[in-house]
Amino acid sequence: MRVLITGGAGFLGQALTRDLLQRGRLRGADGSDQPIERITIVDAAAAPQLRDTDRIMQIAGDVTDRATLESAVDTDTSAVFHLAAVVSGQAEADFDLGMSVNVDGTRTLLDACRARGHRPRVVFASSVAVFGGDLPPVVLDTTPLTPQSSYGVQKAIGELLVSDYTRKGFIDGRSLRLPTVTVRPGKPNAAASSFASGIIREPLNGEVSICPVDRATRMWVISPETVVRCLVAGHDLSSEALGHDRSVNLPGLSVTVDEMVAALERVAGREATERIHWQPDPRIVRLVDTWPGSFEPARARALGFPEDGAFDDFVRAYMAGR
Amino acid sequence: MRVLITGGAGFLGQALTRDLLQRGRLRGADGSDQPIERITIVDAAAAPQLRDTDRIMQIAGDVTDRATLESAVDTDTSAVFHLAAVVSGQAEADFDLGMSVNVDGTRTLLDACRARGHRPRVVFASSVAVFGGDLPPVVLDTTPLTPQSSYGVQKAIGELLVSDYTRKGFIDGRSLRLPTVTVRPGKPNAAASSFASGIIREPLNGEVSICPVDRATRMWVISPETVVRCLVAGHDLSSEALGHDRSVNLPGLSVTVDEMVAALERVAGREATERIHWQPDPRIVRLVDTWPGSFEPARARALGFPEDGAFDDFVRAYMAGR
Repeated sequence: MRVLITGGAGFLGQALTRDLLQRGRLRGADGSDQPIERITIVDAAAAPQLRDTDRIMQIAGDVTDRATLESAVDTDTSAVFHLAAVVSGQAEADFDLGMSVNVDGTRTLLDACRARGHRPRVVFASSVAVFGGDLPPVVLDTTPLTPQSSYGVQKAIGELLVSDYTRKGFIDGRSLRLPTVTVRPGKPNAAASSFASGIIREPLNGEVSICPVDRATRMWVISPETVVRCLVAGHDLSSEALGHDRSVNLPGLSVTVDEMVAALERVAGREATERIHWQPDPRIVRLVDTWPGSFEPARARALGFPEDGAFDDFVRAYMAGR
Repeated sequence: MRVLITGGAGFLGQALTRDLLQRGRLRGADGSDQPIERITIVDAAAAPQLRDTDRIMQIAGDVTDRATLESAVDTDTSAVFHLAAVVSGQAEADFDLGMSVNVDGTRTLLDACRARGHRPRVVFASSVAVFGGDLPPVVLDTTPLTPQSSYGVQKAIGELLVSDYTRKGFIDGRSLRLPTVTVRPGKPNAAASSFASGIIREPLNGEVSICPVDRATRMWVISPETVVRCLVAGHDLSSEALGHDRSVNLPGLSVTVDEMVAALERVAGREATERIHWQPDPRIVRLVDTWPGSFEPARARALGFPEDGAFDDFVRAYMAGR
C-alpha cells in the first residue's frame, strides 16, 4: 500500500514517517497487515532529513491546490494522514489563511480522495480546541463542540466533513482530537500552546523560556511518541469498530503548568526551572483558557488507544531524544 | 434600515417579507425600533407577487456569487435573513450542489457582510437536521450535533461559521434551528419532510397524497406563521441576551404522523384522510428517521420565542389561508 501524509515535513509528520518506515506495515481495509511500499509527503517545503529513503516521495506544494493533491493520491494510496494545518495562534491572527488551509485544504484533500473512487482510509488530526466556552470540569465523549477559536471552529468543520464523506462512502475517515503535544523539539511556533514545549525544552538547553500563562493553567497533553502511536492505532481500527461516530477524544494527561514545571525540577533540578520567566500574554491566555484541561476519554480507552505515563517521563523522553 | 433576505422569493421568504412590510420596523443594534426603508431579496428567480411594492428590491442571482451578494449588502443593510438553501432531499441526492449552496453560499454571504465592516445582524435559518444518530428521546439545548445527512452537516458548518464570524466581530449572528414547517402551501418540494405538508394540503384540496413514512414517525413541527415570528424574534434579540452560544433550538410541537392525520380528520372529516395513501420510500424514511422528533427548548422559551398551539390549528390556519 501507499501512504500519503500531508504536513509530512513538520515535526509530527516526520515522526510519523519514521515510525511507519520502521514498522513497515499498516492494516488494510480487509483487516490484514499490508506492507508499506511508498510514503508520499505533501508539505510547503521538503524535509531534507527524510530525503534519502527510496520509499519516500516528497511533493512540495500547497494543500489548497487541487492538482497537487490529485497527483499525490492514486488508487494504491489506501492510507492518508492529514496533518497539514495552520496552527491556533496563526489561525486567530490571520482568519483567511486559517479558513483557506484548515477548511478549504481539508475539503480539497477529501475531494481528491473521493475522486479516485477507492475509499481510502483517512486519519484527520483534529484538536481538543474543538471544545471551548462553558465546559464541564471534565470533558466527556458526549460533550458538545463549542469551539471559541477560529482554529477550533476550522477543525470542527473538518470533522463534520470527514464524517459526511465517510457516511456517503467517499472515504473511510476518522478524526482524532489531539491533546497538546509536548515536548516538541526545535523552535517555538505560532501555536498558542507553543509554550507547553518551550518551558521544558529551552531550560533543558540552557536557554531562557517565557511562560505566557498562569501556573494554575490546566492542560490536556500527550507525548510525541504516544501521539504517533495513536495516529497509527486510529488508522488501524476497523470501520465497524468506529460506527457512525468518526471523532475520538484521544487519551492524554491532565496537568497544570505548575505540575509540568515541578516535573522539570524533579528531573533536571532547580537550575532548569529558574530559566522560566513568567510574563502573561493576554492574547495567548485568552485562547488557551478556552481549551479543556481534563477529559474522561472512555471511548478511546475502549478502542485500545495507547496512553502516556507521568509527565516526568515526557521530560526524560525529550532529554533522551536530543 | 435596510433588510436583506436570501431565498426571499421562496415560500418562507415571501411570508417573512410580507410580515416585515406589515410591521414596518425591526430592532436596531442600539435596542430601539427602526423603520424598514427597503427589503432586498436575493433569489434564483424573482417573486412576481412581491414586485409592486416600492420598498422591495429583487435581485435574481446565486448566493454562491460574491458580486451578487456584495451588491446586495451595503452599510445601511443592518438586518440579514439567510434562508437560501438546497433542501434536504436534494442535498442528499446532489452532494456537490448542497456543499456549494449550503456551505459556500453561506460563507460568501458572511464574507460580503464582513467586507463592509459594519457588523450587520445575521439570522441564519438552520435546521433540526443538525441532530441525528443515537439521540436521546428528547433533545436538549446541550445535545451534541451529530448530523446524519449532508443537509444537516452543511447546516452545522453554517452554524460554526456564524458563531466564529460573530466572535471575531465580523457580524452579529444568530442561528435558529427550524423544526419542520407545515402546512406549506403550493407544491411538494425536494425536502425529505415535504410530505409533512403534503398529507394535510393535498387532501384538503381534494387531491391524493402519498405518505412515504410510517404512521408512528414522530416529528418536531412549527407553523408558517410561528416560524416567521421566530425569525423576527431571533433578529430582535440583543447580542448580550445570546452571549457566546449563537445557536437556538426553536420551540415546536412534537407530533406523530398519526396524530397529524387524526387532527386532519377532526377538522376536515374522514373524506380528507381517505385521500392519504401509505407507501414507504426508504430514501425518505432513512433521512427523516435520523431527525429528532421531540425537544425540550428551554433556552428558546427563556428567550421569549413564540410557540404554536395544537396541530388542529395548523390545519385550520392552512384552510383559512387558501
